[in-house]
Amino acid sequence: MKDNIPAATVARLPRYLHCLSDMVDSEAKCSSEELAAAAGVNSAQVRKDFSYLGSYGTRGVGYDIADLRNQIRKVLGLTRTYPVVIVGAGNLGSALTNYKGFHAWGFKVVALVDIDPTKFGKLVDGLTVESMHDLPTIVAGRSIEIGIIATPAAAAQSVVSRLAEAGVTSILNLAPTILRTPDGVHVRRVDLSTELGILAFHRNT
Amino acid sequence: MKDNIPAATVARLPRYLHCLSDMVDSEAKCSSEELAAAAGVNSAQVRKDFSYLGSYGTRGVGYDIADLRNQIRKVLGLTRTYPVVIVGAGNLGSALTNYKGFHAWGFKVVALVDIDPTKFGKLVDGLTVESMHDLPTIVAGRSIEIGIIATPAAAAQSVVSRLAEAGVTSILNLAPTILRTPDGVHVRRVDLSTELGILAFHRNT
Repeated sequence: MKDNIPAATVARLPRYLHCLSDMVDSEAKCSSEELAAAAGVNSAQVRKDFSYLGSYGTRGVGYDIADLRNQIRKVLGLTRTYPVVIVGAGNLGSALTNYKGFHAWGFKVVALVDIDPTKFGKLVDGLTVESMHDLPTIVAGRSIEIGIIATPAAAAQSVVSRLAEAGVTSILNLAPTILRTPDGVHVRRVDLSTELGILAFHRNT
Repeated sequence: MKDNIPAATVARLPRYLHCLSDMVDSEAKCSSEELAAAAGVNSAQVRKDFSYLGSYGTRGVGYDIADLRNQIRKVLGLTRTYPVVIVGAGNLGSALTNYKGFHAWGFKVVALVDIDPTKFGKLVDGLTVESMHDLPTIVAGRSIEIGIIATPAAAAQSVVSRLAEAGVTSILNLAPTILRTPDGVHVRRVDLSTELGILAFHRNT
């Protein structure tokens, strides 16, 4: 089934999951209109997106909130815990280690590494900063599958290679640079100037 | 012209601009194929996107890099400087104040505010942390148009209201929560667990 879900629908599923998670559990049902308003899309889009998941809701009653959450979690693969390593123990890496949004989704930061020896041993939200040199052992020993790059732009390309060599195949890049991606590695980039650029466009229309 | 550019094209323009900025200036031209490879889309998409900008390139020669950069900057409204306020002077807010990706795009962080009096006066990358209570004066005095929310999730909704009251109409929300948006205010959300969720999906397909 997963192969048939359009990428645009996949990209909206986490947003729906957020909205559904914000809804009070006492309300067992929600309509496509409610969910559309919460997620900032139109209700036809909601119904179409959920049809790819095989969820159709009940006319006049809506969708079962708990069912829909589970369904989305299952499709996204969020029914288990993903150990995550953060590379870069500066302000950004420290902020991400503390980031409360990850826990509820099953992403667990289990390592924070840096190349700067003066940072080794520093405690950040209960994690000890470790050396980048130990990355292969850390990744293998803690079954890490996802890496987050929170280094300066100039370091990011070499970090991708080292993560890939260590066996990490899913990478979220927060450094403001575009990376060449090794084969078999999936990199997503979060670029904050891009987001501001889109805001600037909308200001000017 | 701007009204006719599809939202999906607008969302790709910053990525093209990044790629074009990474290209060496000595190479005056680039093909749609080169740009497509750098941006991770297909070349037909590149040509279609640029046709909305009125840029068609020259067959066998490609696009003029400098022209295309200027054209994209003009469409996105990135030909001027945007003063930005960051709300929340924790690790995330401090990281953003230092974020080197903003400068090249004309986004200039001119204020960093917090509600915690113990942070007032602290220096972050040359900026002094100021009080949230002074937001209206700060926004008016420095002609601030864009706000970035880097607070914990629980505080974010009230920050949106206070930014809107102070006159800020474009907001980037990095707190892991969905916000009710006042009329006339444009909010974009960067949610890192969403990004990880999409990565998790692709791991599992």
